[in-house]
Amino acid sequence: MTLTRADCEALDRRDPLATLRSQFVIPPGLIYLDGNSLGVMPAAAPARVAQVVQQEWGQGLIRSWNAAGWMNLSQRVGDKIARLVGAAPGELVVADSTSVNLFKVLSAALHLARAESSGTHRGAQRHVIVSERSNFPTDLYIAQSLAQQHGGTLELLEGEDIPARLAGARGQDVALLTLTHVNYRTGRMHDMAALTAQAHAAGALTVWDLAHSAGAVPVDLNGTGADFAVGCGYKYLNGGPGAPAFVWAHPQHVSSAWQPLAGWIGHAAPFEFTPDYQPAPGITRYLCGTPPVLSLAALECGVDTVLAAEPLGGMVALRHKSLALTRLFAELVQTRCAGHGLRLVSPTEDALRGSQVCLARDDGAYAIVQALIERGVIGDFRAPNVLRFGFTPLYIGYAEVWEAVEQLRQVLDGGVWRDARFQQRQQVT
Amino acid sequence: MTLTRADCEALDRRDPLATLRSQFVIPPGLIYLDGNSLGVMPAAAPARVAQVVQQEWGQGLIRSWNAAGWMNLSQRVGDKIARLVGAAPGELVVADSTSVNLFKVLSAALHLARAESSGTHRGAQRHVIVSERSNFPTDLYIAQSLAQQHGGTLELLEGEDIPARLAGARGQDVALLTLTHVNYRTGRMHDMAALTAQAHAAGALTVWDLAHSAGAVPVDLNGTGADFAVGCGYKYLNGGPGAPAFVWAHPQHVSSAWQPLAGWIGHAAPFEFTPDYQPAPGITRYLCGTPPVLSLAALECGVDTVLAAEPLGGMVALRHKSLALTRLFAELVQTRCAGHGLRLVSPTEDALRGSQVCLARDDGAYAIVQALIERGVIGDFRAPNVLRFGFTPLYIGYAEVWEAVEQLRQVLDGGVWRDARFQQRQQVT
Repeated sequence: MTLTRADCEALDRRDPLATLRSQFVIPPGLIYLDGNSLGVMPAAAPARVAQVVQQEWGQGLIRSWNAAGWMNLSQRVGDKIARLVGAAPGELVVADSTSVNLFKVLSAALHLARAESSGTHRGAQRHVIVSERSNFPTDLYIAQSLAQQHGGTLELLEGEDIPARLAGARGQDVALLTLTHVNYRTGRMHDMAALTAQAHAAGALTVWDLAHSAGAVPVDLNGTGADFAVGCGYKYLNGGPGAPAFVWAHPQHVSSAWQPLAGWIGHAAPFEFTPDYQPAPGITRYLCGTPPVLSLAALECGVDTVLAAEPLGGMVALRHKSLALTRLFAELVQTRCAGHGLRLVSPTEDALRGSQVCLARDDGAYAIVQALIERGVIGDFRAPNVLRFGFTPLYIGYAEVWEAVEQLRQVLDGGVWRDARFQQRQQVT
Repeated sequence: MTLTRADCEALDRRDPLATLRSQFVIPPGLIYLDGNSLGVMPAAAPARVAQVVQQEWGQGLIRSWNAAGWMNLSQRVGDKIARLVGAAPGELVVADSTSVNLFKVLSAALHLARAESSGTHRGAQRHVIVSERSNFPTDLYIAQSLAQQHGGTLELLEGEDIPARLAGARGQDVALLTLTHVNYRTGRMHDMAALTAQAHAAGALTVWDLAHSAGAVPVDLNGTGADFAVGCGYKYLNGGPGAPAFVWAHPQHVSSAWQPLAGWIGHAAPFEFTPDYQPAPGITRYLCGTPPVLSLAALECGVDTVLAAEPLGGMVALRHKSLALTRLFAELVQTRCAGHGLRLVSPTEDALRGSQVCLARDDGAYAIVQALIERGVIGDFRAPNVLRFGFTPLYIGYAEVWEAVEQLRQVLDGGVWRDARFQQRQQVT
């Protein structure tokens, strides 16, 4: 039975996480289903950033590296993110961009895989990097770059073909498996534990991109035995535009794997200014240059909004609500927008779905997204034909889901989206 | 004849650049001689950053990538910095950190040097990266990392031995010369034109780190024929703590040299999300991941403070004042602090000196810097024995130089610095 708007309003009144929305500034009249691209602004961010700019930079100046704790900000925020992804304190740092961090961990994993395979006299055999054809492009570009540089092979498969590629004799040439945990375009989520176990059984290492997972779905890096991970600060962590990213290495690898971005902030004693590089102990060696403090401070505000859910059940409770929201959206689209040529791209099975719902349409996907944006329902378009809607359970409610589908229905029913002004593509939506 | 305080005050009154100081917020009572480590805050920065946080992020959200111009911010700020370093519009972008950019350009230069030398059948000969032993550590670490990865050799020389190393038959194995234009510890400036010409005569390429040059001394990248350059946003460009860095490649190399940090923002069509990497035309291919917008916006305010000198004579006028300030400081130290064991480390010859003056002392250098900081004169300590003072001509005046030396004299005369509280080292000063 399809829920009514009144049913959804009742769900909002009973939502134990509803109070978390007050942590954010949400523009009036906006239904923001794009938190998987750029999370909304935490209400604490303007004052915190102003403090960093006016007090810490403006008044403290260079002294703030110590006095305001800038020196340890990458680790401090890293420790907070660690709590959201099943990592221990000291295992994860904030640094650079997701792309740059991918370069570090893919390099480290390749280095490790080769060292191990040469130790067992299988040297040249382990040269394949396996990934998914529909992985986020930057993940593929960075892997491609490293494969090209080191004489390896990047092999792109459909997600469902990966287990067979790792099994038995076929898996013996695989150096590493690198995947985005939740696919950016479909919202499909991989089974991190199962794939990691399959990769390990094949003698390969795993690198996970948590861009669409951190703050959106429970992740247990240590529990699954993953080898390396990176993730994004500006999506479900609400860290602000281009917020720095994070990087994690399993404690068993962190000191043995070499990564090439050997910058001074990752040195064991950066202020000794010695000409030889000695990596810092632990994950700090994955830092490279001086971090962008303003952006890092905003990221901390964002991460704090997710940690605020801890007394209410944390990531498990957020996941419960996220699934309810995405399930509701998919159901309402199927019932209320039937006959308009929309296909559900995201999995209906909860265990396979992240915190987004994607729809495909043979034509008009871009224009429909634009028409929705004009009506205050912000999702995004992903080429070639996908309408993408992200549901951040911290600030999205059930009645908003209902209203978003209602607007979608109106845009489709009236043919509104066929208007010329919605056809012109901009670079980003 | 040594100038008096009154003489210095008179110089300030006649200083044609004195009005530029009003662009900054300078904490009362502070004489800030550390703009070569972290520039002071432009008065425009708080409002601009607040606008980006509250309006562009908070209200515009994802729409601001287009509506607020975030997509082109790296290029827009890059074009502004280009005006300060002798580059043309479209040749320079803001991206990542100096360390990460060094990795890109050193990789590209090595790639190019090898392609060229294999073309002339000298393949294995060109394997040496020449640098200066006293170069900033991150430059050496990144070069070391690349040499290790590609089977090259990093050869560290004293600055004065570099020309001989490049000359004649000895230069034939040199792939590239990488130097910081103005040395971070001594303030000594290399002759970029002469060394570039010598490197080119040897068949080698040059990579210049402008960390202590951009906004401090005139630089003419195109005029000197340099091959690659990187630089820092938070020193003389006043971009704020950890501001993003910049990267430049000579137009003749930009499309032929391959760089390995092939991220999605450097792709020719990032929103097509194609699985194969196609680098963007020109310098945009040196972008990698999503840029930290808040830090980038603050950097633009900083760069604007330097560009504000253009109607007053620009970098030439700033250089003229900078030399007068550093000359004055060095002279006053020699006359007023004589007999206290301070040695001038920075060159007295104008053409060899950047915008800083460094002093060495056998013991107590750290404690003396601390005692000065307590008195509101902020310089910094560089291991093992250097007191470093930077002079940003945009906001430092002659009477401040006089007063800084007066405080130094008092700290030394009274033995104030021997107090126990000044001996305890912190990570950064």
